Amino acid sequence: MAKKDKIRRPKAETPKGFRDYFGAEVTQRKAMLDAIAEVYHLYGFEALESSAVETVESLGKFLPDVDRPNEGVFAWQEDEDADWLALRYDLTAPLARVYAQHRNELPTPYRRYAMGPVWRNEKPGPGRFRQFYQCDADTVGTASVAADAEICAMLADTLEAVGIERGDYIIRVNNRKVLNGVLEVAGLAGDDKARERGIVLRAIDKLDRLGIGGVRALLGEGREDKSGDVTEGAGLNDAEISIIMSFVQAFDKAQQRLALEATAAFDEGNEDRGKQLDRARNCVMDETRDLYLGDIEAHSIWTDRVLNVLQEITGHSAVGLEGVNELRSIAALNKSSGYADGRIVIDPSVVRGLGYYTGPVYEAELTFDVQNEKGQTVQFGSVAGGGRYDDLVTRFTGQPVPATGVSIGVDRLLAALIAKGRIDKTPAGPVVVTVMDRDRMADYQTICATLRQAGIRAEVYLGNPKNFGNQLKYADKRGSPAAIIQGTDEAARGVVQVKDLILGAKLAQEASLEEWKENPSQTEVPLADLVPFLQKLLA
Amino acid sequence: MAKKDKIRRPKAETPKGFRDYFGAEVTQRKAMLDAIAEVYHLYGFEALESSAVETVESLGKFLPDVDRPNEGVFAWQEDEDADWLALRYDLTAPLARVYAQHRNELPTPYRRYAMGPVWRNEKPGPGRFRQFYQCDADTVGTASVAADAEICAMLADTLEAVGIERGDYIIRVNNRKVLNGVLEVAGLAGDDKARERGIVLRAIDKLDRLGIGGVRALLGEGREDKSGDVTEGAGLNDAEISIIMSFVQAFDKAQQRLALEATAAFDEGNEDRGKQLDRARNCVMDETRDLYLGDIEAHSIWTDRVLNVLQEITGHSAVGLEGVNELRSIAALNKSSGYADGRIVIDPSVVRGLGYYTGPVYEAELTFDVQNEKGQTVQFGSVAGGGRYDDLVTRFTGQPVPATGVSIGVDRLLAALIAKGRIDKTPAGPVVVTVMDRDRMADYQTICATLRQAGIRAEVYLGNPKNFGNQLKYADKRGSPAAIIQGTDEAARGVVQVKDLILGAKLAQEASLEEWKENPSQTEVPLADLVPFLQKLLA
Repeated sequence: MAKKDKIRRPKAETPKGFRDYFGAEVTQRKAMLDAIAEVYHLYGFEALESSAVETVESLGKFLPDVDRPNEGVFAWQEDEDADWLALRYDLTAPLARVYAQHRNELPTPYRRYAMGPVWRNEKPGPGRFRQFYQCDADTVGTASVAADAEICAMLADTLEAVGIERGDYIIRVNNRKVLNGVLEVAGLAGDDKARERGIVLRAIDKLDRLGIGGVRALLGEGREDKSGDVTEGAGLNDAEISIIMSFVQAFDKAQQRLALEATAAFDEGNEDRGKQLDRARNCVMDETRDLYLGDIEAHSIWTDRVLNVLQEITGHSAVGLEGVNELRSIAALNKSSGYADGRIVIDPSVVRGLGYYTGPVYEAELTFDVQNEKGQTVQFGSVAGGGRYDDLVTRFTGQPVPATGVSIGVDRLLAALIAKGRIDKTPAGPVVVTVMDRDRMADYQTICATLRQAGIRAEVYLGNPKNFGNQLKYADKRGSPAAIIQGTDEAARGVVQVKDLILGAKLAQEASLEEWKENPSQTEVPLADLVPFLQKLLA
Repeated sequence: MAKKDKIRRPKAETPKGFRDYFGAEVTQRKAMLDAIAEVYHLYGFEALESSAVETVESLGKFLPDVDRPNEGVFAWQEDEDADWLALRYDLTAPLARVYAQHRNELPTPYRRYAMGPVWRNEKPGPGRFRQFYQCDADTVGTASVAADAEICAMLADTLEAVGIERGDYIIRVNNRKVLNGVLEVAGLAGDDKARERGIVLRAIDKLDRLGIGGVRALLGEGREDKSGDVTEGAGLNDAEISIIMSFVQAFDKAQQRLALEATAAFDEGNEDRGKQLDRARNCVMDETRDLYLGDIEAHSIWTDRVLNVLQEITGHSAVGLEGVNELRSIAALNKSSGYADGRIVIDPSVVRGLGYYTGPVYEAELTFDVQNEKGQTVQFGSVAGGGRYDDLVTRFTGQPVPATGVSIGVDRLLAALIAKGRIDKTPAGPVVVTVMDRDRMADYQTICATLRQAGIRAEVYLGNPKNFGNQLKYADKRGSPAAIIQGTDEAARGVVQVKDLILGAKLAQEASLEEWKENPSQTEVPLADLVPFLQKLLA
C-alpha cells in the first residue's frame, strides 16, 4: 500500500531551460528542415535517425570546454550494474557509433544526413535552451577533399533552397593543417606550447571583432577591453608574433600584391588585365564583395594569390604545405562546379571551435545586417559550420576512418529567415463554422465536411456555443480567415453568411461609421456556392 | 590531471532496446507522418512540439500496469536539490502540462496535433523498442461529443490519406459510460468490486479472440486455455453474468430483431423494406461487411437497433443512458457528414486499456489479412485508438477540463502500409559518377553539379578510385539506377558511358551469353545530352 500524502498539485512547467513550440514555430522549422533534406538527398546523402539515447561510454567526451565525465549531458544509470545512459548532445558522436557498429553492412563511403533534437545539460540563458535541433550531413570513409568541396557547394545550395539569397551568404573555407603549419613555423608545435596554441587560435578566430591590433595584443602581453576586463595573452616574442600576424594579414598581403600587379598592368598599357586584377583585389572585401559576385575569374585570381601568400608563410612545414595544397584542390573543384564565384571563398581566419577537426574547416556566414539586442547594426553571422575529423571513429575500431561533415544551426537559420521576411509569420487558421443553434450541430458538421473535402482547412466551433461573441473571439485567436454563420432563417433559405475576418479586422481599424454600417465584410452565399466562394476568398 | 586508465575501446552499440533507422526507414515514416499531419491540419488542429524532457512530478503516474513511481520511464536527478526529470512516455501527459501551463494564452477549445518519439523504460522484446513514435490529435476544453465524432471521421480520412483503402479499415466507437452503465446494472459499481470490473472489462475486450464461451467463462469461474494456463474468473453469479452477456451479445440480439423485422416485412409483401432490413442485419458482420460499405441507410438502421438494445440493457443506469445518448449523437453526426456508411460503426466490445478514459472511446482496426509470426492468417488489427479523458488536466489546475483525442501507432501503421505494398521498399539511390582518372576529379564534379542542377540525385564516387570494381559495387549497394563513366578517351570526344544498373542487374540474371556480349545496358551519350538521357532513364 502506498502512503497517502497530502494532495499537492504538480507545477505545470517545463523543466528549466526547456520550452514548447506552438503552431507556426513547429511548421516553419519543419518546412525549413524539409527543404534542407531535399538538397541533402539530391546530393546523394541518405537519411539516418539514430536513437536519442546512447551509452555514456559510446558518446565519449567530445563536448568542448568540459572536463568532468558526464558533464554537459543528461545521464542516468538504471541500477548499479547497468550501463550509464545519456541523451545525445550532437549528431556526430552518434554517427561515429553507428558507423562503427554497422560498418560491415553500410556502403563506403557512408553518406548520411540526420536532423533532430539534441540535449545539453548546460546553464540555460536567453535564447539558449537545453534541447535544440541540429541538422547534419557527413561523408564517412573518404580522405578525398572532394568530399569537403562538395559539402561547401551543398551548403550554398541549401541556404538558397531555404530562402537566403545569393549575396546574403558566404561560405568560408580554411584548413586546420594550414593553421598547424603556421604554428609549427612559429615554433609553437611542441607539447609544451598547448596553452599558447589555444590563445593564438582563439585570437585568430576573433579577428573580425578585435581587428589587427586586438589580435596582436592577444599574441603578446594580453588585452584590456573597454570594460577593463583583461584577457591573458600568449606571451609570444616579436619573431613569433610576426609570423602569426603575417598569416592573420594574408588578405592584406594578397591585396597589396594585386594592387602592384594591377598598377604594373596599367603601366604596360594592358588595361583589361589591370581591371581584372583590380576586380580580383576587391572581390572578397566586405565593402565591394557584392559587386564581384559571379565573377569566377576575379575570384580565381584572388584565391591563387591568397594561397601563394599562405604557402610562403607555412610552406616550410610539411603539414602546412599539405594544407595549402588541399585548399588548392578544394578551390579548383569549386571553380569547376561553378561555386567559386564568391559564394565559397578561402579564408585563413576560419578556425572553428571544436578540437577534433583535422583538415578542411568551413562555415556559412550570413552577411546581411540585423539589429542585435543592444540595438546595434551587425552582420547576422554564422549559421552553419563543419570540417574534417579523421579520428572520430577510431576510438571504437582502432582504425582511422576519415570523415567530413557539416552541421546547420537550425534555430539561428530559422531566425535569419524570419528576420529577412522569408517566412510568413502568421499562417492562416481554419475557417470556423459557428454554431447558432446547438441542435443543428449535424448540419454544421456537414458544411464543415464539405469544405474539408474541397481541401479547405475548416472546423466547427466545438466550445460552448451559448455566447456567440466567444465564437468570433475564438476564430480571431485562431487567425481564421472566415467564419461561417447559419441561423434557422439562413438554413431555411439554403444560404450561409460568410464573415471575412481579415477584411473585418481591417475595417475595424480603418472604416468610417458609414462603411462599417454597410458591413462589406459579411456576405450571404448560397450553400451550393460556398466552396468556390471561399476558394476565391482564401486565394 | 585525469588518471590515465588503460586504453579500453568503447562498445559501438545502441543501448539495449534502442535501434537506429536507416534511409528508407526514415523517409517512409516521414512521408506517412507528413500525410497524417496534412489531414490533422485540414481539420483545424495546430502543431505542438513539447519538450522531450518533463519533470517527473508533472508527468504523473499515468502508465498503466505500473505501480512504483518512475517505473516505466527514464528518469534522473541532477543533484539532491534538483527536480527529478524524465523522458516523456506518451504525448498526452505533456499535453495536459502544456494546456495547464499556457491555458490563458491558448484558444479554447485548444486543438493540437503532435508527433514525435516517446520513451518507455520497459523490457524490450522482438519488435518492441524503448523509443518509438506516436502521432496524436486532441481537442482540449470541450464536452461536446461532436469533438469525438470529428476525430473518428478524421481517423478515417487519415487512414485513406496514407494509403489504406476504404474497406480495409473500420473505426469502432463505444462509450465508457455505457460500459459503466452495464456494470452498474449488474451490481458491480461499488468500490469493493474493482477487481471484478477489471476482469469483466478485460473479458469484453477479448471477445474477438475468446468468443462468447470464453468471455462467459471469464465472467464466472475462470478459464483454462489449450496450454493449460488458467485465467482467474470474476466469479459473478448467473444473474450478473446474464446481464453482462446480454451486453456482450448486443450485436446478436440486434441481428435477431432485424431478422424478425425483415421476415415480417417480407410477409407483408413489402419486399423493398425487407431487403433493406436484411442489408442492415448484415452490414457490420465480418463476412458480409464489404458488400454494404457505403450503404448509409442500412448502417443507420443497424446503428439504431444496436443502440436500442444497449439502451434496454443499460438504460436503468443514469450514466448508461447518458452514454447511449452520446453514442446516438455521434452516430447522427457521422451520418450527416457521410462517414456512418460502414467506415465508422458503434461497437460495444471496444474497451481500450487506459484507465483514464471517461466517455466515448474509439479505435481503428485494419481488416485485411496478414500472416502472423506463426504463419497463421490473421486480421492486421488495431493501428490507432483514443477517447475522452475529462480529468487529465485537473491534477494541475483543480478544474475539470474535458478533452478527447486519438493516438496513431506509427510503427504498426507503417508496417501495414508495407504489408499492403503501399510503400516502395527500395527508393532509388543516386546516380554515381565514377572516377576513372583521379586527376580529373574536377570534371566529374562538374558533370555531377550539372545533374544536380537538373534535379537529378547524383554524387561523384568519393572513395578510393583505384579499384573500379569497388566503384560499381558501391553504386550497387546504394541502389543507384545508373553509373556515369568517362575515361580520357571519352573526355576527348565529349561523351560519357551511361551504365543502366537496373537493366544490367536484370541482364545478369536473365541474359544469354550473346545478349550479354552486346552489353545493351551501357550507352554512349554526348555530355550535352546526358541530362535528358538520364531523365528518360529515371522516369
